[in-house]
Formats: sequence, C-alpha cells, structure tokens
Amino acid sequence: MQEVRVGIVGLGNVGLGTLTILAENAEQIALKLGFPLRVTVVCSRTVASKALPDSLGEVYKTTDWRDVVSHPDVDIVAELVGGTTVAAEIIEGAIAHRKSVVTANKELMALCGAEIWARAIRAGINLAMEASVAGGIPIHAVLREGISGDRIVGLYGILNGTTNFILTEMEERGGSFDAVLAEAQRLGYAEADPSADVDGWDARSKLAILAALAFGEKITPSDIYTEGIRRIAAIDFQYAHRLGHTIRLVASAQQTAEGLILSVRPALIPQTAILASVRGAYNAIWVKGRYGADTFYYGRGAGPLPTGVAVVSDLMRVAREIRSGSPERVSPFAHERLGEYRPIPVTRQRRAWYLRFRVVDRPGIIAALAGILAEKRISLEAVLQLPCDNKADLPFVITAEPTTEAAIREAVKEMSRLDFLLEPPLALPIEPGL
Amino acid sequence: MQEVRVGIVGLGNVGLGTLTILAENAEQIALKLGFPLRVTVVCSRTVASKALPDSLGEVYKTTDWRDVVSHPDVDIVAELVGGTTVAAEIIEGAIAHRKSVVTANKELMALCGAEIWARAIRAGINLAMEASVAGGIPIHAVLREGISGDRIVGLYGILNGTTNFILTEMEERGGSFDAVLAEAQRLGYAEADPSADVDGWDARSKLAILAALAFGEKITPSDIYTEGIRRIAAIDFQYAHRLGHTIRLVASAQQTAEGLILSVRPALIPQTAILASVRGAYNAIWVKGRYGADTFYYGRGAGPLPTGVAVVSDLMRVAREIRSGSPERVSPFAHERLGEYRPIPVTRQRRAWYLRFRVVDRPGIIAALAGILAEKRISLEAVLQLPCDNKADLPFVITAEPTTEAAIREAVKEMSRLDFLLEPPLALPIEPGL
Repeated sequence: MQEVRVGIVGLGNVGLGTLTILAENAEQIALKLGFPLRVTVVCSRTVASKALPDSLGEVYKTTDWRDVVSHPDVDIVAELVGGTTVAAEIIEGAIAHRKSVVTANKELMALCGAEIWARAIRAGINLAMEASVAGGIPIHAVLREGISGDRIVGLYGILNGTTNFILTEMEERGGSFDAVLAEAQRLGYAEADPSADVDGWDARSKLAILAALAFGEKITPSDIYTEGIRRIAAIDFQYAHRLGHTIRLVASAQQTAEGLILSVRPALIPQTAILASVRGAYNAIWVKGRYGADTFYYGRGAGPLPTGVAVVSDLMRVAREIRSGSPERVSPFAHERLGEYRPIPVTRQRRAWYLRFRVVDRPGIIAALAGILAEKRISLEAVLQLPCDNKADLPFVITAEPTTEAAIREAVKEMSRLDFLLEPPLALPIEPGL
Repeated sequence: MQEVRVGIVGLGNVGLGTLTILAENAEQIALKLGFPLRVTVVCSRTVASKALPDSLGEVYKTTDWRDVVSHPDVDIVAELVGGTTVAAEIIEGAIAHRKSVVTANKELMALCGAEIWARAIRAGINLAMEASVAGGIPIHAVLREGISGDRIVGLYGILNGTTNFILTEMEERGGSFDAVLAEAQRLGYAEADPSADVDGWDARSKLAILAALAFGEKITPSDIYTEGIRRIAAIDFQYAHRLGHTIRLVASAQQTAEGLILSVRPALIPQTAILASVRGAYNAIWVKGRYGADTFYYGRGAGPLPTGVAVVSDLMRVAREIRSGSPERVSPFAHERLGEYRPIPVTRQRRAWYLRFRVVDRPGIIAALAGILAEKRISLEAVLQLPCDNKADLPFVITAEPTTEAAIREAVKEMSRLDFLLEPPLALPIEPGL
C-alpha cells in the first residue's frame, strides 16, 4: 500500500530522537499501520552537520523550512523547532499548503492552540500534539479517546521533570535549593537560566493545554496562578513528613460549581498518594472523572526518545487519518461549544495550610502569630517545631484548618510586618483528595 | 449532523452503567463528537423489569439479541453479555449484518479475538474492546495510539481487583487467606465461586489480550503459566517486608531474545516500585518500551461506571470512524504479520527466589535444605526467621540467588519429601526491574 510521507523541521534532541525511532522501528510501524511511513525531507539550520540514521534511506535536506511545507512529497509536517515565532510560521505555512501537522510545541499550543486548531479544521487537515505535554505519557490519547466518554472533574499533575528532580533530591539528600539546582544544572537536568522550570512557567503552559483537552475550554495561560519552588527548603520536607505529607510542584485544574480553578504551585500532598511516589525527572497526571473515578498516568517527562515516541505515535495516527480521508472535525480547544471559560481566582479556594516561619527566638512569638490567625478567623490546627539549636534562625511550622486563600494571604501580609521574622512566612496549601 | 445509533445487548451492571453515562453525558458526548450518539435498541432477557435512565428517550426494548443485530436503526452493537457462547453468536450476527461492534468480553476476546478481528476486517466494520481489560484504565487507547510508535519489551500488570483487594487486606490487617476471602465475598468484591479470580484465570484472559495488543501476536491463554494466591499467608507479607518487598498477583509478558515469556503468579516486588502502591480493588499496568522507557497506568479494575466509561469511549471512537468511513484495516492480533508466536516456558526464566517453609522445629533443618540447594547448584542468599514460639509449626524463609525456575522446581520437589515439612515449600519469584 502507498506510503505516507513525513517532513521533519527541527533536528534538535526531539527531532533526532524521532528520526531514530522512524528509522529503527520502520518495519513494525508499517505492520501496525498497514502501510509505510517514510521521511522524505528534513530541515535544520545545521542540517549539513547532522548525523542521520543510516536506515532512514534517501532524504532531501534543507535549511529552509519553506522547502518542507511546500514540498510535493510531504503529507505531514512535524514541527519540532519549539518557541512561538518561527514555529507559528511553519505551522501556518503547512496548513496553507494543506499539509497535516504534528507538533511538540507546548508554548505555542498553550498560547494559540485554539486558533491553530480552528484553522486546521477549516483547511480540512489533521493536527496532533501528544508530545507537547509530558513527553513520555500518552495523556492526549487518553483524554481524546481512552476516557472520552467520562466527564473530567479534576486533574492534578507533576508536569515539570526538572523541578521534580530538584524537590526529590532535597527530600532524599537534604541540601539547599541553590545547591541542588546547581547539581541539576551540572547533570544537564536544568538549564543555565532555570526560570522557565523553577518558576513554574513550563508547567503552566502544559497545564493550559491539558485543561483545554480535559474540559473543552480555551485556557489563557496568564490566568493560571503560578508559583515556583525557589522558597522551598530541605527543612520543609522534614516538617511535611512529620505531617504525613511530602511537597511537589502540583499543576491542578479543578471543576467547581462556579468554574475552573487552575494553579501551578508547590503543595503538600499525602505520602500515601501515588503522586507522592513520583521521584526524579518523571511526570505524572492524576485524573478524576465523574464516572470513571480516579485514573493515574506516569512516565518520562522529556528526553529525545520518550518524546520521540509521542511524535511518532502522532505521525502514525495522522497518517491513518489521512489514509482514511478523515480530517480534523472537532477542536479540543472548543470553548465556543461549552460557553465562555470563566477562570475562578485561587483566592476563593478553601484549603488547609502549612505556614513555615523562620524567626529570631524569643517569648511571645506563637501568641503574636496565633493572634493574627484568630483575628482573620482562621483556626490554628497544630504548631510543630523540630529540634534546632540556632536561636537566631529558628524554623517552625503552624498548620491551619481549611480556609480561603484570600484569608491566608491577608494573615501572611499582616504577619510579614512582625519584626522577629527573618523572612515572610512560606504558605503552602495542603491538597486534599489525592 | 446525523446521529450514530447504538444497540445495547446485556443490561447487567456494565450495561446499565453504560446507559447511565450515555443518557447523563449525552450533550458533552455530542459536543466532543460533533454529532449525537443515540441508543435506539436495548436487549436483555429481563428487559421489562429494568429501570432505564429517563433522559435516554424512547428506545425499542427486546428480549432477543437477534432483533438488535438485524435492526435497521442500529449502527453499532455493544455486546455486554459476557461469556463465550451467546456472546460469540451476537458478535458474529452483528458482523454478518455489517454492524460495528463494541465488546467488554475478556474471555471471548482472549480465546477468539484474532478470528473475530479477521472477520471484522473482511466485513469492513469496526471493532473495539477497551472494556475487556482493566475497565477503568484506557490501556487499549494507550497501546493502540498513545505509544504505538514504541516497541514494547515488557509489561507487568495487576489485572484482577479481587485478588489485589485480598492481598492488600492480608498485608495491612493480617488474617488468613480464607478469612479475608470470606470478608471479600461478604463485601461483594469476590464471587461465591472465587476460582476465576483467586486462581488467576481472570487475569490470564486479560494478559492474553494485553500481550496481543502490545506484541502484535496471537496468544493462546492456556500457554500462560498461571498460579493463584491461595497459598499466600499473612506471614509472607511480614517476610516480604523484611526483604523490602511486598507480594502482588503479577501478570507479566516479557520479550526475550527467544520469544515471549508469559505468566500470572504471585511474586515479590520491591516496596518502592509504584506497582507496590496499588492497593484494594484497583488495577495497574507497567509498560516498558524500548524507546519511551517506563510508563505506568492505574485505575479501577471494574465497576459499572468505570467500565461504562470504557464502553462509551469505544462507542465514540467507533462512531467517529463510521462517520469518517474508515473501517478496521489492521488487527491487533496479527500474528501472521510478525511470524508465529513461540511461547517460551517460564521454566527457562532466571529469577531470585523466595522460599517459605513451615516445619516442625528440630536440629539439622537448614543443613538439609541448604544441602538440596547446593546439590542443584543454587546459591542460598539469606535465611530469615521472625520470632515464633510454636515449635510445631515454625515458618521461616530462605532466599536464593537468581536461578532458573526449572532448577527451583527440582529443588522444591526434592525438599517436599523431607519429613519435617508440614507442607511443600512455597516458592515465589522476586521480580527485578520494576
């Protein structure tokens, strides 16, 4: 049977991983599809210096993406460039030439996914983006097909491998955030500029895409409350363990009667929760469905080959759809179908709270802090203090019973004025129901 | 847009769960598909006494499945009867009338899946069976689409909720197998005749289907080495914990250079393995891919609504394929494509072993047992004995370094003749690499 032909734009780690799988696994792919998938064109600014797998056969090499999107021997364009500028042009160019598109681009799909999808449907082509979120976890296939009959009510994810590596290193070996970050950079798990990871922006893009898929709404990433992990200290894990919990950077989307509440933030989760067993540079997603109850998905968050599996699996699906003549018909970002998306601010969310203080020890500290909580009508649940000899920098923890984030923020603001505090209190929500 | 019409045969728990979701979630299903999915015919021997959801609208009720498969207003037949006799006739009848089929039937698909699939392809209809394995986990969608580009090298599952409930109860609360089984029967987690669950037959059918999907081979269920959990005692969990492990009924399929090794059996798995955190009536599947590395999937193993989600999601997928005119083209049971399947006997597999003895205490016991191991060239690793005052029924454990199952079986056979043993040794493999 006639082959489906692929053009690859971008030969970075993911591009080369994708080529490796397409070359090495070609026979099995053809058996699964009933026809071969062949790479006809590859494009990279440095294509001349790239070592391509031998078994790939003859391919046309170019440094200009325009050659790929307009090439007569390309049915599907794989956009593996990343970023939001050239990548957007490549996808637009492909759609304009009625080529189907597979992309691994989380920033672009989080920002403009709805518009791109609408254009693809108008053009009658196919679009796929499994690799854009949690590379090694086939969460798109799960939400789009596997549990499409369910109604999702909540979704909790560990979506950034770098921060999860840093947090679990701090948990297991101690060490300050800065020291562990430096180690992660040395090992290649963190970028020289770590902001996209440790400040939560990467996880925010991924959550925007996942929530769009899960709830059929167009999410604006900047509507998502986002807080990074820079303030987490090794001591926080000791206190969290005392409370039967651990700390992870949790990306969550919860359907409430009023609308969706979205956040990316470090939170306490029970040590018995399966999400707590996710260590190192792995990703995981916990989905709560109205009918199907809890399901959980786990895998590598990134890496050339795991992400390459996502790209290749998307290429196979799109190839099958091209072959059967079924273009994209319904957008996963279809907010117009379900009514406009109303983001509910996290300040309305009720949670129990973990408040960690660093103080210069002296009498009256608990009284002052408890006084502020009482004034804001927040019930104090427990005061915890692990042994510490340094009276000039004494950490301790107060937990508060469930209250709104608005109330806790007011209390924290007031507390921050107290002169015995070495820094503003660290306030982390305690996630229930995981 | 024109609706796709569904006929449901079988209104047991899964049938009613499916109807509930189709009725309650109809609007969202139509938005996701771009057209409605409507139930037109339902069939059950006791259909007159069944309370159907009000919002389902008008449906034709019948007690004869022949009315469903031949009905002009049915595009997809959902076979939710179970068993291997009438169910086979229903599916054959549907295919003969060129209706697409969704089934939740594990026994039938494990036994005759390859033949049924071949017939469906010849007839140009669509077939789906997500609900046949691990109801709440969309593992079919994952293997068929999500990670289809990968090459699966191994698969480990907890595929039977009843046995997992029994084992985790024994682990957490103690109690003999018989006592916990009685409790599970009282709670409705186990059948009056528990053999299909506790002897491993149910998990065996599911493994046959999963392995077919993962490896593209037709698996004969009776080729799968199957051992149940009746011999596991609460004391085994105490010893396993001492070794940093726990015990689960593990269904495994491993690709080796010689072929596939398949088994369903209780095994020791590390307590740090995510599979070990699966408790109660849940299912989970760990997949090892050559490119995508480890992925893990978890959810309810059964239940009317979780299984209903699988059936409804399958109906949606098949409806989409009918609408786009894309019939089934490639069978997941396509052994003829990849060469005949050669089952490799478990006796060739090398594992470390856990050997638990119950003895009448007296001098020379360890010497006798160690002597037999030495004779079979098996290296003894450790001898463990938890405090016990009963010298007339003393349990203890020997662990052996990796050796073939053939060697361990010979040793166990020889040991069984020793007169100080109260019962033959219990030998469990220690699963590496999870």
